[in-house]
Amino acid sequence: MEVTQVLHMNGGTGETSYASNSLVQQKAICLTRVMREEAISSLYRSMQQPKRLAIADLGCSCGPNTLFVMSEAIKLVEKLCRELKHESPEYEIYLNDLPGNDFNSIFKSLERFKERLRNEIEDEHGMGSCFFNGVPGSFYGRIFPRKTLHFVHSSYSLMWLSKVPEGVENNKGNIYMSSTSPSNVLKAYYEQYQKDLSLFLKCRGEEMVEGGRMVLTILGRRSHDPSSKECCYIWELLARALNHMVSKGIIKEEQMEGFNIPQYTPSPSEVEFEVEKEGSFTITGMEVSVVPWNANDDGNLSESLRNGGYNVAKCMRAVAEPLLISHFGEAIVEEVFDRYQQILTKTMSEEKNHFVNVTISLIRKPRSA
Amino acid sequence: MEVTQVLHMNGGTGETSYASNSLVQQKAICLTRVMREEAISSLYRSMQQPKRLAIADLGCSCGPNTLFVMSEAIKLVEKLCRELKHESPEYEIYLNDLPGNDFNSIFKSLERFKERLRNEIEDEHGMGSCFFNGVPGSFYGRIFPRKTLHFVHSSYSLMWLSKVPEGVENNKGNIYMSSTSPSNVLKAYYEQYQKDLSLFLKCRGEEMVEGGRMVLTILGRRSHDPSSKECCYIWELLARALNHMVSKGIIKEEQMEGFNIPQYTPSPSEVEFEVEKEGSFTITGMEVSVVPWNANDDGNLSESLRNGGYNVAKCMRAVAEPLLISHFGEAIVEEVFDRYQQILTKTMSEEKNHFVNVTISLIRKPRSA
Repeated sequence: MEVTQVLHMNGGTGETSYASNSLVQQKAICLTRVMREEAISSLYRSMQQPKRLAIADLGCSCGPNTLFVMSEAIKLVEKLCRELKHESPEYEIYLNDLPGNDFNSIFKSLERFKERLRNEIEDEHGMGSCFFNGVPGSFYGRIFPRKTLHFVHSSYSLMWLSKVPEGVENNKGNIYMSSTSPSNVLKAYYEQYQKDLSLFLKCRGEEMVEGGRMVLTILGRRSHDPSSKECCYIWELLARALNHMVSKGIIKEEQMEGFNIPQYTPSPSEVEFEVEKEGSFTITGMEVSVVPWNANDDGNLSESLRNGGYNVAKCMRAVAEPLLISHFGEAIVEEVFDRYQQILTKTMSEEKNHFVNVTISLIRKPRSA
Repeated sequence: MEVTQVLHMNGGTGETSYASNSLVQQKAICLTRVMREEAISSLYRSMQQPKRLAIADLGCSCGPNTLFVMSEAIKLVEKLCRELKHESPEYEIYLNDLPGNDFNSIFKSLERFKERLRNEIEDEHGMGSCFFNGVPGSFYGRIFPRKTLHFVHSSYSLMWLSKVPEGVENNKGNIYMSSTSPSNVLKAYYEQYQKDLSLFLKCRGEEMVEGGRMVLTILGRRSHDPSSKECCYIWELLARALNHMVSKGIIKEEQMEGFNIPQYTPSPSEVEFEVEKEGSFTITGMEVSVVPWNANDDGNLSESLRNGGYNVAKCMRAVAEPLLISHFGEAIVEEVFDRYQQILTKTMSEEKNHFVNVTISLIRKPRSA
């Protein structure tokens, strides 16, 4: 199954989604702010009073986080312009996601967004004009003209592979990499990740100007082991819910065996390795951060116990539901998530788990002649 | 009322619409093909093997005509590249309409569109990459960065004013300019048209490169008289339906008096006058063409009598319904269009009427230093 379909359907649900518009992502965005600010600031200073600044958000989704990083970038550049007594550039904002994303909703929110932004900047000089574009298409392919982008951002999208790796049919009882996955499964996942990330970097390398900056936050892991608990456990618990249903005869075993999540959660060194191999970019910084599964968790233990499982199940449902429906059909979905929520609630009462974010800051190398 | 609302709602109806996606517009697009081909061809030849070509369609709507002109342009440039033994440029296609337009539907159709286009061009060299962007916003304002566009097209959109002119409250019994409109009403309509077209030209002037080409098709008139039958009669017949309903007490007279269509159907000389006054463009060609009200009319008289009124009513409903609903509410709409259809059927059995298109081809002047 193509991920196209997955994200497509997410776009349509309007649900909170951990892929792109959840509290988890919001926390991740806050944690990685310093890296983005450094990238944008040094990009701007390197450009000598640019007349235009083209900024793309890849996998923008549609929800409260969609325009946040863009507004942050514009505000920072406006601040720099005041400090350096420069005229504001024109901002070209490119919002990319798969063609099934709900661009209509983003577009309808833009006028209010721009008005709020102007009020926040509130400066007698006024801010630079902002031109917004919706760019439909997979980022595992060219979606922008050559040498046009100055700053590229992507958060919580690049862990999605372009498709389920081939040759993982023997990943029995699992739906993702796991400690019980045969080694060929881990290999197939890793190879698909390599192909996809390499293609992503090649395409962005063509689209970005020399010296252009890119900051990517990918759901990943710290461990060298691709089947480590910190990245796989959340899916293992979902597999547990599905396996219960197989044992009750609600889901057929053959059906369960064909279901695998098209995601890869890389370690920092795996990301570094691909970037260096592909060759278009230099790494200027890398960071690992963690966000608790229940990002809402404010430390109130009883509250956390009550709602934790519900919140995480809801969050995961937004991304997993379209995958489940397209594979198993709609009928089983309610039961899957009821069971998943129960399992999550129990697990979270016993242990604390985190999502791991790998954030990488890159600069487009000069092109060889 | 702002036209924003009108076109917004059109976008949502998915209906055939004479504003943008009707047979009437399709015929207009065919009639004006030569002018577009001349513009694109001489633009391309003037550019000396461009690496990129940025093309915008303003008021693209969403329907069968939306991508037609874009595909025509790409095919022509590809043909020129073969003839001149040039490498294909990268195509940047910008599809603009108001934020309420159904961009989601356009975006979902793009993959198939590109595939069909590649098949039609079927060339061993392959065609240049196409990058599609949705650009939400009113074209009576800046929507693109400075000096970026090479070719701009707009068809059946520019007769819509940015709003209903002010001071037309005394246009009693009419909903548009008419032979019985007081002179201040005709003046107010004309002044709003002048302001809007001038602003449109100023914005495009900033956005287009020097030597860039623009072809605009506007629903207009041949006569010097702005209240002439050829442009106003179609609305007069709708006013007739509404006035019947006022006389029956279904619509209140005060309500009828506040309803006016935010459109202006200019003569060729009025368009020419604004272009010359604004100053950013030189006119390279101008054409007037006509399309019968019932563009479907294949000459079969009985067929034409049977369906003519229905077809034209349906066509007009797509553009007028949102305006009527926002002013009068939903309850009266069915009856209005039943009555309108009857009036149209009778009229069309007695006389032949046409829509008049004014098409103008422009070139962006060199900027003064």
